[in-house]
Amino acid sequence: MRLISAGGHQIKAQTGEELQVCRIAVRDLTRDRGEWVDRSILTDDPNEVVNDPDIDIVVEVMGGIDPARHLIESAISAGKSVVTANKALLAVAGAELTKLADDSRKDIFFEAAVAGGIPLIRSLRVSLAGERVRRIAGIVNGTTNFILSSMSDSGASYAEALRIATDLGYAEADPTADVEGDDARAKAAILATVAFGKLVRFEDVYREGITKITSDDIAFAKRHGFEIKLLAICELDENAGGSETISVRVHPSLVPASHPLALVRDSFNAVFVTGDAVGELMFYGRGAGGSPTASAVLGDIIDAAHNLSYGVTERQLSRDSAAIVDIATTSNSFYVALDVEDRPGVLAQVASIFGRNLVSIYSMEQEGKGDEARLVFITHTAPEAALHSTLEELEELETVKRVAGFIRVFDA
Amino acid sequence: MRLISAGGHQIKAQTGEELQVCRIAVRDLTRDRGEWVDRSILTDDPNEVVNDPDIDIVVEVMGGIDPARHLIESAISAGKSVVTANKALLAVAGAELTKLADDSRKDIFFEAAVAGGIPLIRSLRVSLAGERVRRIAGIVNGTTNFILSSMSDSGASYAEALRIATDLGYAEADPTADVEGDDARAKAAILATVAFGKLVRFEDVYREGITKITSDDIAFAKRHGFEIKLLAICELDENAGGSETISVRVHPSLVPASHPLALVRDSFNAVFVTGDAVGELMFYGRGAGGSPTASAVLGDIIDAAHNLSYGVTERQLSRDSAAIVDIATTSNSFYVALDVEDRPGVLAQVASIFGRNLVSIYSMEQEGKGDEARLVFITHTAPEAALHSTLEELEELETVKRVAGFIRVFDA
Repeated sequence: MRLISAGGHQIKAQTGEELQVCRIAVRDLTRDRGEWVDRSILTDDPNEVVNDPDIDIVVEVMGGIDPARHLIESAISAGKSVVTANKALLAVAGAELTKLADDSRKDIFFEAAVAGGIPLIRSLRVSLAGERVRRIAGIVNGTTNFILSSMSDSGASYAEALRIATDLGYAEADPTADVEGDDARAKAAILATVAFGKLVRFEDVYREGITKITSDDIAFAKRHGFEIKLLAICELDENAGGSETISVRVHPSLVPASHPLALVRDSFNAVFVTGDAVGELMFYGRGAGGSPTASAVLGDIIDAAHNLSYGVTERQLSRDSAAIVDIATTSNSFYVALDVEDRPGVLAQVASIFGRNLVSIYSMEQEGKGDEARLVFITHTAPEAALHSTLEELEELETVKRVAGFIRVFDA
Repeated sequence: MRLISAGGHQIKAQTGEELQVCRIAVRDLTRDRGEWVDRSILTDDPNEVVNDPDIDIVVEVMGGIDPARHLIESAISAGKSVVTANKALLAVAGAELTKLADDSRKDIFFEAAVAGGIPLIRSLRVSLAGERVRRIAGIVNGTTNFILSSMSDSGASYAEALRIATDLGYAEADPTADVEGDDARAKAAILATVAFGKLVRFEDVYREGITKITSDDIAFAKRHGFEIKLLAICELDENAGGSETISVRVHPSLVPASHPLALVRDSFNAVFVTGDAVGELMFYGRGAGGSPTASAVLGDIIDAAHNLSYGVTERQLSRDSAAIVDIATTSNSFYVALDVEDRPGVLAQVASIFGRNLVSIYSMEQEGKGDEARLVFITHTAPEAALHSTLEELEELETVKRVAGFIRVFDA
């Protein structure tokens, strides 16, 4: 809003759209909001925004499912276009909200919901509309990337890195949605829906967070030429019969150090898009923060205003539901760490279990000795189910103290 | 066109736009064009495309100024929207063509003209419409990036790297437009116009090519933590009085090895955008080649078709002319290489000339001995004019055999 108040003149000059901030609903009317806000337009009742007949475009940046969902529905029903940054809501109710907007012949734009200021959604919806997108793989959560980057740079433990992230304001007091991967999960659902033209919902997305990643995992990965990143991966597969399946998942991944995604540091976001004609594209920038989000919201507002002045709307997104692939049926190369007894014959026992499950080993290394003995493997590509039965059998082996962890290797 | 013929069904399903290839003008009717072309729609007279009343959208990918300009003008005047990849034409006549399209209430789209399949133009025009873009710095010519990357990787000379690029099809038989920087110059003019909303033309862009870059330059740059890249740089500056000036230039630049632009290899393109609110963004992908270009053209066609079916057009670009800054008045840090007599006192003479011109030296290194003696400097930021008067005085010094070269350092 500040961008409009301060830059309205420039926006008019560059785009021809005259924007005016009519009303702002806030939680706390008493809080100081600086000079740029005309306090007379503040209200603590969002319904006053939604029901104001003078308002053409409603911007929702409150977050959360309720009351945001009801407010957006009311706004669209009242004939307003909506700009929202609410990834959580879109991931569970995007189809319904989009349909409502289409039926009302109004727009709902959400560039800021994924990767903040990076113009990814519109690029996928419009510029790449004719592109057959095969895969999207990206770092879409800045908090976890900050944590993993600082673990990689300093050798810090997960707990230490999280504390630094919290102190610096990169992680919220309750970091669960970020570190368990649900924030990225919502974004993955939105990206897959937009890129593939199929309806993918929050619950369709497999997700693992980063809380089990240890500094040992990261050190091993680095020694073997990988960085560990939390990736959101959306893949479209054509099956023999011509039918299509979609796999959407969020989990830590070993990314080859030479891959551009491995080089994304701090709280930056980056998204790799692979398409049949366009090949590989990458979008990189600040994924969060007030200012990049505001930039994306403002772009949407100007686009919505342009459409309103012509009485048109953005083209509809397809709402066919998708055939979602269970992660158990996908295949990956895996990093596996086992804490073992340090005595002769253990490797043979372990290797025979990998072999019996048809999981081929690409590389193996022993770390530590005696009580600290650990075997670390990278496998060739193997079905997820085969890896899990391997791990179950390994858990039962007397010489294996525990499966310390496994991480998928990104197929760059 | 093949994408439409082969993927028309999918395009209809995903976007609702029904596209049909009506007519294709080619230079040579006898050439084999594969199975996907219905030969009855081929013609060798482009006027048959432009004058066909059944055609709504004309795609121009022939390149060059004439007859492309006349054909596009005719198409727009006949009420058609135009999609073009013609950077050379846009850089000299973009304003006139855009105005003609606006007056006819039709679209002219040109996503493919800059950075091929990377959705950069629409991102700047729409998503970042409200953003105050301060700088664009990018690698927008794949041929020169291929040559510079292979010089950096293998230590090859410019001539050897050019020959490899030609053999592999990355450089044309006459590589002048690429290696002398005119291709990047046209793209820089288009980018500056779109990003700043001011009219910047081909002749407004300062340009130096890469033909004088030697393997010694690249080796020195690498030892000091830089890669040499041909950058297109567009900068907007606000002056004390509030007036704005624009500097647009294409020249080889020393890019810090840790900067994402330094990591762009082969014929890839990458463009860094810096804005007040959004911070730093990067777009990365294949800048050229039939298939990425086709992807961008198809996105434009679908957008144009959408607009036609609603009877609307894209918002106008500003056509105010810009106050262009002469490169002589800009400041940079510089790399300077001097071939000198190898005897005591030379450095003192040279350094005093730098000092007299108020160009401070950041680092100095002697390479080679005797007849091969060379002094290599990196300066602190200094006005371009001061550097040039320094070089002129150095040329006159008896102990300086020649100024072997100078390259600007990118202010990352």
